[in-house]
Amino acid sequence: MPMPLIALLTDFGTQDAYVGVMKGVMAGICPDAQFVDLTHAIEPQNVRQGAFVLMTAFGYFPKGTVFLVVVDPGVGSQRRAIAARAGDYFFVAPDNGVLSYVLRRYPYAVINELTSPAHQLAQVSSTFHGRDVFAPAAAYLAAGESLDRLGGRVRDPQKLPQPTLALEANRLTGEVLHIDHYGNIVTSLGALAWASGDDLVLTPAFGSVRKPQRFSASKASCHMGSAKIDGVSRTYAQVGQGELVALIGSSGFLEISVNHGSAAERLGVHLGDVVEVRIE
Amino acid sequence: MPMPLIALLTDFGTQDAYVGVMKGVMAGICPDAQFVDLTHAIEPQNVRQGAFVLMTAFGYFPKGTVFLVVVDPGVGSQRRAIAARAGDYFFVAPDNGVLSYVLRRYPYAVINELTSPAHQLAQVSSTFHGRDVFAPAAAYLAAGESLDRLGGRVRDPQKLPQPTLALEANRLTGEVLHIDHYGNIVTSLGALAWASGDDLVLTPAFGSVRKPQRFSASKASCHMGSAKIDGVSRTYAQVGQGELVALIGSSGFLEISVNHGSAAERLGVHLGDVVEVRIE
Amino acid sequence: MPMPLIALLTDFGTQDAYVGVMKGVMAGICPDAQFVDLTHAIEPQNVRQGAFVLMTAFGYFPKGTVFLVVVDPGVGSQRRAIAARAGDYFFVAPDNGVLSYVLRRYPYAVINELTSPAHQLAQVSSTFHGRDVFAPAAAYLAAGESLDRLGGRVRDPQKLPQPTLALEANRLTGEVLHIDHYGNIVTSLGALAWASGDDLVLTPAFGSVRKPQRFSASKASCHMGSAKIDGVSRTYAQVGQGELVALIGSSGFLEISVNHGSAAERLGVHLGDVVEVRIE
Repeated sequence: MPMPLIALLTDFGTQDAYVGVMKGVMAGICPDAQFVDLTHAIEPQNVRQGAFVLMTAFGYFPKGTVFLVVVDPGVGSQRRAIAARAGDYFFVAPDNGVLSYVLRRYPYAVINELTSPAHQLAQVSSTFHGRDVFAPAAAYLAAGESLDRLGGRVRDPQKLPQPTLALEANRLTGEVLHIDHYGNIVTSLGALAWASGDDLVLTPAFGSVRKPQRFSASKASCHMGSAKIDGVSRTYAQVGQGELVALIGSSGFLEISVNHGSAAERLGVHLGDVVEVRIE
Repeated sequence: MPMPLIALLTDFGTQDAYVGVMKGVMAGICPDAQFVDLTHAIEPQNVRQGAFVLMTAFGYFPKGTVFLVVVDPGVGSQRRAIAARAGDYFFVAPDNGVLSYVLRRYPYAVINELTSPAHQLAQVSSTFHGRDVFAPAAAYLAAGESLDRLGGRVRDPQKLPQPTLALEANRLTGEVLHIDHYGNIVTSLGALAWASGDDLVLTPAFGSVRKPQRFSASKASCHMGSAKIDGVSRTYAQVGQGELVALIGSSGFLEISVNHGSAAERLGVHLGDVVEVRIE
Repeated sequence: MPMPLIALLTDFGTQDAYVGVMKGVMAGICPDAQFVDLTHAIEPQNVRQGAFVLMTAFGYFPKGTVFLVVVDPGVGSQRRAIAARAGDYFFVAPDNGVLSYVLRRYPYAVINELTSPAHQLAQVSSTFHGRDVFAPAAAYLAAGESLDRLGGRVRDPQKLPQPTLALEANRLTGEVLHIDHYGNIVTSLGALAWASGDDLVLTPAFGSVRKPQRFSASKASCHMGSAKIDGVSRTYAQVGQGELVALIGSSGFLEISVNHGSAAERLGVHLGDVVEVRIE
C-alpha cells in the first residue's frame, strides 16, 4: 500500500516553524504520511490567490491525496473549519471560500465540519488552527478515518466571488490572477486549448456561462494597460529574447510573458488588473 | 515500525544546496528516514533565535524524533559537537547553547560529544560540520545507534543567557524574541494561559523564578515604545481590521499583532526591544 | 528495499506550486519515492549556476539517487530532453549543458533522449516540461524503468563553456561561480586540498589541464578587485570577527569569506568576477 500523501498550501511563509510544526503533528497521527509542499508563499490572508493556485495544482496529484489548505484570516472567529471529499481527493481548510474554485468542479462533493474534539489537539489555541484543528484532521483522513467522524455535514460552504471572465463575440475580458516567480502574468482567461489549425478554444473556468468559444489565434490581440501583443503563440521561443508574448500557460490560462525576462516588471501590472483579448 | 523522523532547523537559507546535501548524507546512512524542515531562515549565526524557535516547536513532534539543529558561528573552532537524549527526543547540534532553552526543561537529559570518526564523513571539512559531523550523527541516531557510541559524556553543555522576564506585582517586563512572517511580535512573556473568567496565568518559561503569577486580562495594558494596548484579547477578531491587539500567541507567549496587518511594521520594533505589561 | 530517492534542483522558486506539482506527478508514478530539494533558487534561467551547484552536491547522495534538474530557458524550442546514467546516479534534465559539469567526470555515462510518449504526461504543454516530461521520466527511473525505454541514445550532449581556471607558476586565475546565503564567495579555483605541512594542492576541476599544482598557503595571496587577502586559512576562526579570510570552502573550492559577516556585500562582487591567487 502506498504511503498516504498530504499536500500543503498555506500563507505561512517558511521563515517560522509553523509549517514544520503542522508536519510534526501529522507525523504523530499518521506516521507513514508523505508530505509535499505546494507553496507557503500565498500572499498573507489572500484567500482568493490560495483558491486559484490550489485549483491549478491539485489535479496533478494521485488519487487519495489529502490537501491541507490554510489561508485563514478569520482564525479564532466563528468561521467554520471543514473537510471535503471531492472526486478522488480530500481537502481540509477553513470555510472561507478557499476551496470554492475546486469545489465548483465537484457538484457532488461531500463536506463535513471539523468539530470532533477527538480529532483535534487537546488544547486548541485561538490563533493557530492550522496546527490544532486542520493538521490533525488532514492526518486522520490520510490514516483512513471517515469524513463523517470529523463532524456534521455542511451543505452551504462559503463561496468566493468568481474572477472576471466575460466573453463577447469580439472581446474576451479577464483579470490578472497570479504573477509567478519568473514574472509571468497569469490571467483568468481559460481554460484555453489549441484546436485544429490556428484555432483556440476557451472553455470558461469561471462564471455561469459554460459554453466554449472558438477563435483564431492570429486574429487575436492581447491588451493590458497600454501594451498590445499581437496573436497567441505556442512557445516562448516564437518571439525574440526580451520580447512580450501571449501564450497558453502551464495551467491552461492565457499568460503574458517576456522571453527570458519578467513581464510583470515590464508592464508594471498587479493582481486584479484587467486584460482584454480583442478578435478582429 | 514507523519511519524515523528527522526535523531540521538551521540558518542555511534555502538558496544553496546545503540543506539538500545534509539530507543526501542522512539518506545514505538511514534510508527510511523522513525529513521535516522546521525552518532554515534563522538569522545567520543568531544562536538565540534558533534556540527559541526550537523550544516552541519540538514538543509537537512524535516521540523519537531526531532534531538536527545547525546554527554554528563557531564551525572550525574548538567548540564541541554534541547530541542529547531529552525526554523522548534526540537533539544534535553544536555546543553553543542552541539547545539550552530546550534542555532547561530536561534536567535528566543525557548529552554526549560527537567524536567518533566512524560516525562522521571520512573527510571532515573545517567549514561545514552540518554535512560532515551533525547530519551523520542525526542519521545514525535515527537508525537506532546508541548515544554512547558517538562519543564521551558531556556534563557541562554551554548555556545561553536567559531572555528578559521580570515579574513584579504590577509590572511584567520582557523582550521581543521573534518576529514572524505576518509581522506578529513574539515576546518572552510566557508561558501564558487563560484561567477562570478573565484571569491569565503566567508560568515563567525563563529565569530562575518559577512561581506562576495570576492577573486580570482586562486590567493589563501592554507597552512597547510609545504604543499602548489595553487588555489581552482572546482572538485577532476581537479588534477591528488594522488595529493593534495583544494576545496569547500560538506558542503560549504574549504576542502583539495587527488584525490583518503587520505589527512589526506598524511599531518598528526589533529583536531585543523591551515590552512591558502594566497591571492596574 | 530502501525508498527511491529523487533530488530536485530547479530555478522555479518556491512561491508558485510548480515544484509541488512535479512531486504530485512523480508520486503518482512512483508512490514510494522520497523527495529531497537541493535548491529551487537557481537564478532564473542561469544554466551555468545550476550546473555548478549540482556538481558540488550530487556526490553526497546515496547510490541510485535520481536527480531531476530543470533550468530550462529553451522550453518549447527544439532543445532535447535527456536522462543520463552516470556512475551510480541518474540525471534527468534539458539538454542545454546543465549536466555537463557532472558528466565531465563520467566519460562512460549513458545518455538517452526523452521521447517515449508513454513516459510523459498525456498532454505535454509547451511551457512546463518539468511537469510534463522531466518529472515523469525521473519517477519512472526511480521506479526501476530502464533508460533505454525512455528514448534513443544521445552521443553528443550539449556542453557549457568551462569556467575560467588558468594555472601559471606564480598566478592562479579563476572567477566567482556562486555567492551563498552567508555572502561567502565561491570561486572556480579548485578542487583544493591540504597536503603536508603548509602546502595546498589544486587538482583542476575545470579546463583541459588536469595536472595538480602544489603551493604554499602562507606564500599565497588572494586578489579580488582592490582587496588583497594574505594566505589561505584553515578555518573562519583564524581571523577576527568581521575580517576577510580565504579558505577551502565546503565543496573544495577557494572561498572568500568574512568571519561572522558577508564577503559579497563587503567586496561588492558579482558572478563572473575575476579572482587571482598570486604566489610569491
